[in-house]
Amino acid sequence: MNTPIKTQLIDGKAFAEKMTKDVASKVAELQKTTGITPGLAVILVGNDPASEVYVRNKTKQTHKVGMRSFMHLLPETTTQQELLNLIHRLNNDPDIHGILVQLPLPKHLNPDPIIQAILPQKDVDGLTVYNAGKVSLGHMDGFIPCTPLGCLLLLQQELPNLRGLNALVIGASNLMGKPMAQLLLNQGCTVTIAHIDTRNTAELAQQADILIVATGCKELVKGSWIKKGAVVIDVGINRIITESGKLKLVGDVNFQEALGIASKITPVPGGVGPVTISCLLHNTLSATEKHIKCIS
Amino acid sequence: MNTPIKTQLIDGKAFAEKMTKDVASKVAELQKTTGITPGLAVILVGNDPASEVYVRNKTKQTHKVGMRSFMHLLPETTTQQELLNLIHRLNNDPDIHGILVQLPLPKHLNPDPIIQAILPQKDVDGLTVYNAGKVSLGHMDGFIPCTPLGCLLLLQQELPNLRGLNALVIGASNLMGKPMAQLLLNQGCTVTIAHIDTRNTAELAQQADILIVATGCKELVKGSWIKKGAVVIDVGINRIITESGKLKLVGDVNFQEALGIASKITPVPGGVGPVTISCLLHNTLSATEKHIKCIS
Repeated sequence: MNTPIKTQLIDGKAFAEKMTKDVASKVAELQKTTGITPGLAVILVGNDPASEVYVRNKTKQTHKVGMRSFMHLLPETTTQQELLNLIHRLNNDPDIHGILVQLPLPKHLNPDPIIQAILPQKDVDGLTVYNAGKVSLGHMDGFIPCTPLGCLLLLQQELPNLRGLNALVIGASNLMGKPMAQLLLNQGCTVTIAHIDTRNTAELAQQADILIVATGCKELVKGSWIKKGAVVIDVGINRIITESGKLKLVGDVNFQEALGIASKITPVPGGVGPVTISCLLHNTLSATEKHIKCIS
Repeated sequence: MNTPIKTQLIDGKAFAEKMTKDVASKVAELQKTTGITPGLAVILVGNDPASEVYVRNKTKQTHKVGMRSFMHLLPETTTQQELLNLIHRLNNDPDIHGILVQLPLPKHLNPDPIIQAILPQKDVDGLTVYNAGKVSLGHMDGFIPCTPLGCLLLLQQELPNLRGLNALVIGASNLMGKPMAQLLLNQGCTVTIAHIDTRNTAELAQQADILIVATGCKELVKGSWIKKGAVVIDVGINRIITESGKLKLVGDVNFQEALGIASKITPVPGGVGPVTISCLLHNTLSATEKHIKCIS
C-alpha cells in the first residue's frame, strides 16, 4: 500500500521558455502593426545582492522578448518623496507600460504608499488595491501578481480541471498566498490557507490534492505531510551552505522526501522561478495592449 | 463522551441595538459639531417582495439613528443607462454619503457595471473593486461588506482572540463568503472556503472551530457536521411553509440538530440579520466622517 510512486518533475524552465517565446512573437507583431514597443520600468533602491540578481535577470529577459527596459537604480539614501516623484514621472511617461518596484525596500521607506502610487494600469506586479480587488472578485481583467499567476499556469498545465480539488496554500502574504488562494477558489478548488498561526498544518497538508508552499522556511514541508499523489508547487527559494561548503538553493518542501509520494512537484531551482519572470513579461505585454486599445 | 453541551444563543438583536444606539449618538454629535447629517441613498429596481421588506427595514433604521434616507424606487422597466445616470447624480450629490443598490437587480440589468459606477468612498456596501482590494490586502480603512462585517463583530464578541482557530466558510460569493474568509484570515484564523464544488463539506465542517454558513440552502448543515463546541454563524434566511401551513424562517443550519453540539449559535431570525443593518449604518457614518475629513 505504501509503495512509492514515480514523481514527475514539473519543468518550469521549459514552460517559461515557451511562454517567453510566445510573448516575443506578440511583441514583434505589435511593433509591426502599431509601432509601439512595450516598456518596463524596474526600480531598485539600495544594494541588496539577491534583489540585484533578480533585477538583472528581469532586465535580461525583457530585452530578450524585444521590450524596452528602463532600469532605475537608486541609492540606499533615497527618500520616500524622491521615490514617489519617480513613480509619478513613470506614471505619466507614455513609453512606460509597466512599473515594478523591487521589494523589499530599505527599512526607512514605507512600501505601501509607494506601491499604491503606481497607476493600476501600469501595476504589472498586481500589488495595488485595485488589482487586488480584481483578483478577489474573480475578474480576470486586472493584473494578477506574477508568482501566483505562474503557479496557476503550471498547475493548469498539469491538471486541466481544478474544480472540486482540495488545495492547501501555506503562507498568507499579499504578494503570494492570498492571491493564490483566490485564484484557486475562482477555479473551483476547495481552498485552505495556512500560515504562522496554524496549529495543524501537517494534518491539513495530508488532505490536500494540491499543495502550494510559500513560507520562506527552508524544507518546512516533510514527506510525511504530503498526500500520496498530490501535486506540489514549491515557491520557496532558500540559500543554504552544504556540508561540503557549497552554496545550494532549496525550496520550502523537502524535495528528497517528497519524491515517491507526490505525483508531481516543481524543483528548486527550475520550477516556479522562471515562470514568474515570464508572467511579468506577459503582464507587461498585456498592459501595452490595453494602453493601445485605450488611446485608439 | 457524547453528552450534549449547553448551546448558547448569540443574540444578534441585542448586539445590533447596542451598535445602533452607538451610531445614533455619534450622528447627533456630528450634527452638533459640523451641522452635517449623514445621508444614505437606497436604490430599489422593480417589485421583488423580499427586497421591498429589506429596503423598508433599512429606511426605518436609518431614520432611527438620525440619518437622512433617500429612497429611489425605480420601475422594473428601468434601463441600464438610467440606473447609471442616477448613480452618477448621487455620486456628485454632497448630501449623499452612502449609496446602496439593493440586489438582486431585474434580469435585464447587468449588476457589475452598476455597482462599479458607485464612488468607492460612497460604497457603504463594500462591493466595488477598490473596497474588495482593501479587505483582501488586510487594510481596514475601506468599506467592508455589511454581512461579513456583522459576522466578524458577532464572532469577536464571543471569541475575543480568533488567532489560530480553524474556520470554515461555506459559500464563496463576492458579497459574503470571499470577504468573510479574508476577514477571518486577517484575524489569524486558518481558513477554508467550501462551496458548491466541494466534495467533503461535512468532513471539513467537523474540523472547524468556527463555522460560517451562507449558502441559501435551507438547513444544509446537519448536526453531525458540527464539531462539538464549535461556534456557528448562520447567515441563511430561508422561507419555508410548516406542516400547519405557517410561514417560517429557517437558516442554512439545522438549528434543532445543532443544539447540544455547538457551543454558540446565531438563531434565524434574530442572529446575523439585524447586525447587517447596523453595519450599514456604521459604514454610512464612517463614510460621512471621512467626507468631512476630506473637505476640512
